[in-house]
Amino acid sequence: MHEIRVLAPATVANVVCGFDCLGFALDGPFDEMVIRKLDEPGVRIKHRDDFGLPAAPEKNVAGVAASAILKAAQTDFGIELEITKNIKPGSGIGSSAASACGAVVAVNQLLGDRFSKRELVEFAMEGEALASGARHADNLAPCIFGGFTLVRSTDPLDIIRLDFPPLWTTVLHPQIEIKTSEARKMLPKDVSLSNAVRQWANLGSLVAGLAKGDYNLIARSLEDGIVEPVRKSLIPKFDEVKAASLEAGALGGGISGSGPSIFMLSNDAATAEKVAAEMRNLYSRTDIEFNTYVSKIALDGTRAT
Amino acid sequence: MHEIRVLAPATVANVVCGFDCLGFALDGPFDEMVIRKLDEPGVRIKHRDDFGLPAAPEKNVAGVAASAILKAAQTDFGIELEITKNIKPGSGIGSSAASACGAVVAVNQLLGDRFSKRELVEFAMEGEALASGARHADNLAPCIFGGFTLVRSTDPLDIIRLDFPPLWTTVLHPQIEIKTSEARKMLPKDVSLSNAVRQWANLGSLVAGLAKGDYNLIARSLEDGIVEPVRKSLIPKFDEVKAASLEAGALGGGISGSGPSIFMLSNDAATAEKVAAEMRNLYSRTDIEFNTYVSKIALDGTRAT
Repeated sequence: MHEIRVLAPATVANVVCGFDCLGFALDGPFDEMVIRKLDEPGVRIKHRDDFGLPAAPEKNVAGVAASAILKAAQTDFGIELEITKNIKPGSGIGSSAASACGAVVAVNQLLGDRFSKRELVEFAMEGEALASGARHADNLAPCIFGGFTLVRSTDPLDIIRLDFPPLWTTVLHPQIEIKTSEARKMLPKDVSLSNAVRQWANLGSLVAGLAKGDYNLIARSLEDGIVEPVRKSLIPKFDEVKAASLEAGALGGGISGSGPSIFMLSNDAATAEKVAAEMRNLYSRTDIEFNTYVSKIALDGTRAT
Repeated sequence: MHEIRVLAPATVANVVCGFDCLGFALDGPFDEMVIRKLDEPGVRIKHRDDFGLPAAPEKNVAGVAASAILKAAQTDFGIELEITKNIKPGSGIGSSAASACGAVVAVNQLLGDRFSKRELVEFAMEGEALASGARHADNLAPCIFGGFTLVRSTDPLDIIRLDFPPLWTTVLHPQIEIKTSEARKMLPKDVSLSNAVRQWANLGSLVAGLAKGDYNLIARSLEDGIVEPVRKSLIPKFDEVKAASLEAGALGGGISGSGPSIFMLSNDAATAEKVAAEMRNLYSRTDIEFNTYVSKIALDGTRAT
């Protein structure tokens, strides 16, 4: 039987001053999906991991996303998706986005690459809506396109792939649970115009710094005066981790998604490894289980292998 | 006697989604300044126009800015500044910025180009503070550096010169008076987080569009959901002018500074002229006196000639 294997990367969204619009793709960890064509219509899901996610396709992010693209393609066949999740649900590095993107890219491969990347994000948004209750694309966009992406608008969907220089990220995933609803409740409904101006001046500068490959400008622009101050209390030792990372040479960073992961950006692999060592050093003195990841910002998003 | 002649261009600040940080320089109109060295210390001002601006240096924007740079240079001589303003005060295209920048660039020339452009903006900010009561740099930065500039921060002063493709602007200056204090009072103190996100996603996209030379992306990003909706009521026929300009092929635009001028951006000179014709057509049916300007976005700011 014809089968296709797809890798869907972890992603970081809410990149510092780019809350709700800026994200980037990692070069691992990846969720793996194997897709097989079935004669009968519908979506069947097999899990090859221990996360206990639902197997019923309508209750599963990958299942909902796969159904959306199959429906649009008006196929008379069905699929089986065999999923090995390596990105832990709730980690804040785009676990549900990887599920949704892996599924739509796998189906699209089976369909002979029929849909555009933008359309794939649209299908994946239906899966993401199941996970978060909202149609947002800030993890999906980098997960499909790779690199750094800016979601200018979700309705209509407008995704801009940013130019950027070589960059590495270090992610610390403390294995604590942050309820997305709780993190969302902490967000201010309103912000002062002066804080908003400072935030958009920083985002404009960050995009300029990425385009110019100006690491110093990138570092100066990685400042979030709106979301980080209220949400960082959810993450033990956030300030210490950030301070130690900057001390080790990181350009800057913040909360990945709505946490609990923390990410830092560096301009070379050696610095990113040093940052990881500092993170491990700090967290090994707590009783919280944790993982660290070091990855180059990946040019590619979800792909067949 | 040694004399130097300087041209200081009009500038547009508060560029749509870049309120309080994004500006650009025109290739005219210009204020002209002739500077002469005097043996005795101090600043003497001569006006060669009919605007009736104060001649006392401590009450004059150019005088205050000139005094600031002379003080920093610890000179034992003074200067005479002969000013021909062609940019009408209160027009919203950086009249006071041109006064301040013309003065500091003229003095700097006399000093043998001693100070950096960034330092010149710092001196000019003292003049701008006299005019507006606030230390802001969004007209000064493009007036000194030329091109498109982003003021990431004023304290410390951090100015980013953006990359941008060939662009033309059309400015309509209705000769009505808008008090800056009145325009400032209309600003919301707070904005909703969702509006702020939309604004910074647009600014990030605009900076990306400028860097990529993607006119379509620039056009899509020229959207202001925060300041234009409240301030446009101060400018007669704002909506009609904008609609007619877009119809004529403009990429987009909005209020220049805090008004009353309206500016539009186009990707070639012919479209910018068509936009000007539409503006003249609409305003000639009112009883408001007005000027229009068509200019390429200038790479150069204030310079000796």
